[in-house]
Amino acid sequence: MTRIVYADNAATTSLSRHALEEMMPYLTKEYGNPSTVYSLGRSAKKAMENARAKIASALGCRPDEIFITSGGTEADNWAIRSAAIMKKDKGKHIISTVLEHHAVLHTLKSLEKAGYEVTYLGVDSAGNISLDELKNTIRQDTILITVIAASNEIGTIMPIAEIGALAREKGILFHTDAVQAVGHIPVNTEEMKIDLLSLSAHKFKGPKGIGALYIKKGLRLPSNMYGGAQERGLRSGTENVAGIVGMAAALEEAVSNMDNNIKKISAMRDRLIDGLLKIPYTRLTGDPVNRLPGSASFVFECIEGESMVLLLDQAGICASSGSACSSGSLDPSHVLLAIGLPHEVAHGSLRLSLNEDNTEEDVDYILEKLPPIISRLRDMSPLWEEKISGKPIK
Amino acid sequence: MTRIVYADNAATTSLSRHALEEMMPYLTKEYGNPSTVYSLGRSAKKAMENARAKIASALGCRPDEIFITSGGTEADNWAIRSAAIMKKDKGKHIISTVLEHHAVLHTLKSLEKAGYEVTYLGVDSAGNISLDELKNTIRQDTILITVIAASNEIGTIMPIAEIGALAREKGILFHTDAVQAVGHIPVNTEEMKIDLLSLSAHKFKGPKGIGALYIKKGLRLPSNMYGGAQERGLRSGTENVAGIVGMAAALEEAVSNMDNNIKKISAMRDRLIDGLLKIPYTRLTGDPVNRLPGSASFVFECIEGESMVLLLDQAGICASSGSACSSGSLDPSHVLLAIGLPHEVAHGSLRLSLNEDNTEEDVDYILEKLPPIISRLRDMSPLWEEKISGKPIK
Repeated sequence: MTRIVYADNAATTSLSRHALEEMMPYLTKEYGNPSTVYSLGRSAKKAMENARAKIASALGCRPDEIFITSGGTEADNWAIRSAAIMKKDKGKHIISTVLEHHAVLHTLKSLEKAGYEVTYLGVDSAGNISLDELKNTIRQDTILITVIAASNEIGTIMPIAEIGALAREKGILFHTDAVQAVGHIPVNTEEMKIDLLSLSAHKFKGPKGIGALYIKKGLRLPSNMYGGAQERGLRSGTENVAGIVGMAAALEEAVSNMDNNIKKISAMRDRLIDGLLKIPYTRLTGDPVNRLPGSASFVFECIEGESMVLLLDQAGICASSGSACSSGSLDPSHVLLAIGLPHEVAHGSLRLSLNEDNTEEDVDYILEKLPPIISRLRDMSPLWEEKISGKPIK
Repeated sequence: MTRIVYADNAATTSLSRHALEEMMPYLTKEYGNPSTVYSLGRSAKKAMENARAKIASALGCRPDEIFITSGGTEADNWAIRSAAIMKKDKGKHIISTVLEHHAVLHTLKSLEKAGYEVTYLGVDSAGNISLDELKNTIRQDTILITVIAASNEIGTIMPIAEIGALAREKGILFHTDAVQAVGHIPVNTEEMKIDLLSLSAHKFKGPKGIGALYIKKGLRLPSNMYGGAQERGLRSGTENVAGIVGMAAALEEAVSNMDNNIKKISAMRDRLIDGLLKIPYTRLTGDPVNRLPGSASFVFECIEGESMVLLLDQAGICASSGSACSSGSLDPSHVLLAIGLPHEVAHGSLRLSLNEDNTEEDVDYILEKLPPIISRLRDMSPLWEEKISGKPIK
């Protein structure tokens, strides 16, 4: 049987064994509805509130600032639409970046159709925004700044604390899509002066289908779903108790091991980067230093990302091309174009994302298998022939 | 240890062992993101699409008419808001009933604030609407009829096929909140001419935190969440694969055993009803015949529902008072008032809801434990003293 090396932890992670163990009672005997008054319901409610307290502790906020959602996408949609509605009397200008996830970008596009104006801050070739540019972009009618905490595609970490301080000083709401950051790098809503923060459990070894929105105490968001008044009336629906418990267990585990994980994972990442940059006509995408511990992203010239990922799959390596191909589009990623890559180069992107379950052997295996795949694909490519011969193809 | 009799299956159910077994691979080794192209992702996608086909088969619709949500509440909110937006050029009149769940009622209230007009059809003392009244309520500007398929509080089943035929004939969208019906009584979207149908897995022994909205082919609903374009672009967010698989397994199981379950459960229900109606000053709520197989709901005069439920809990019986007490309100249920019960009688409500996991011994146990609880509470009640003495309390 082929060895499997899972290197797509930015897409999703395996569920932590500890989290699953914590979930199991709530998938079996402890099935009570937390809204009921008998003991089976009360114990479910207690488990859920313990979980909420763990999540709050991991983010440095209060338990009553954590609102459960079905994932990061719901949290992003809710936060951004709510901010727009709440502040529309003050103005309709929103500041974001060209690096955002589609859950943010497409929500912003829908607001643009509804009459809001969005400024998307550009980034340099390493994916960093300019705080000066942000300052200069703020207007009297700016109501929201929404910035991804760390890029899902190229791993660059945004200056969240600095943005938070600036937004707070100017009295502007600050939301961060921290789906890739929470559980992986330190995130503290108080210190970073964050008003709204989205997270998703399955990115830090929690279950799929569960996430949360942190809402700073005092902000009165409109209800996201009407019904039985769960989540203090803001997000109705019978609670996914097992999912909430699993999310909290996974997050607690990730945060308590974070220092060691960062050391171990970033060392593997750096070895992967060093090894793969030996392949000619290869560039690292994103910031070489200021990046997520597990993120190693590249473009290989004269390579079509989709084919590379399929050949990697045949070798048992799970990775993403970082392009939008998986959703049926052949357009290269908006993020790779934003960092200044030409279309044809952006097509040759590869995202390898590691976590604490990866091993040095995984890195060795990728370093062994990937270079011949690149060679093989380039040998078939007319673009490559042109590049190495120096002659244009007819 | 006290015996536990769970008789609150309308609130939530235990997870089917079969469903959990089907889910386990997706909570362990099969953790791929269905949007990825490698085999681990493709097998998750395949599992999800198999699940969608099972759900479609259970409802008599096409797999591409099933859109996954985080539960019944999300489905209700999405369906009703979407219908209102889609049809606003035709009119702003909506028809519903006084029996609806809060997920529907509060969504309708929010639309009323936004300028829509809602007519809530009344019901008779058994909770039945009048089709003639419905016909007479339809106007030129009626854009949506939304009717609960079966009441979560009193069990009465609504004439969904007749409403569907009428709505289709008049060219009006028809949504049904079928959260209590699906998996328990036959529901067929084609035969019943349903345009939009909400369901929730945890009501038919599936997991919590997952549900679906059936959207009739050809209806173009606005997107419920923006992002990575999952669920054909209408409901973005990484899919809860384990939840979807568990929902489908539970539904397939419920539907394949439905005939036997209905026989077994309704026989237990009827014995429970017959036994409890021997308690003086007790009424069955809802229709005696036209009701959900598992639903046995009552009002006991001169009883406070909350106290009754707490004493039942001490005896190991899990039940709901059917009032809104659990959400912190002391108001009696809107449904019980709608069937014409006076406030003070509505306060004494009890909902016992059985499913296929209940036994004849459970019924015996409830019939043994409940009457002395009623007596004990009445002995402490000044209202009861007044009733049996015939003298008003001072």
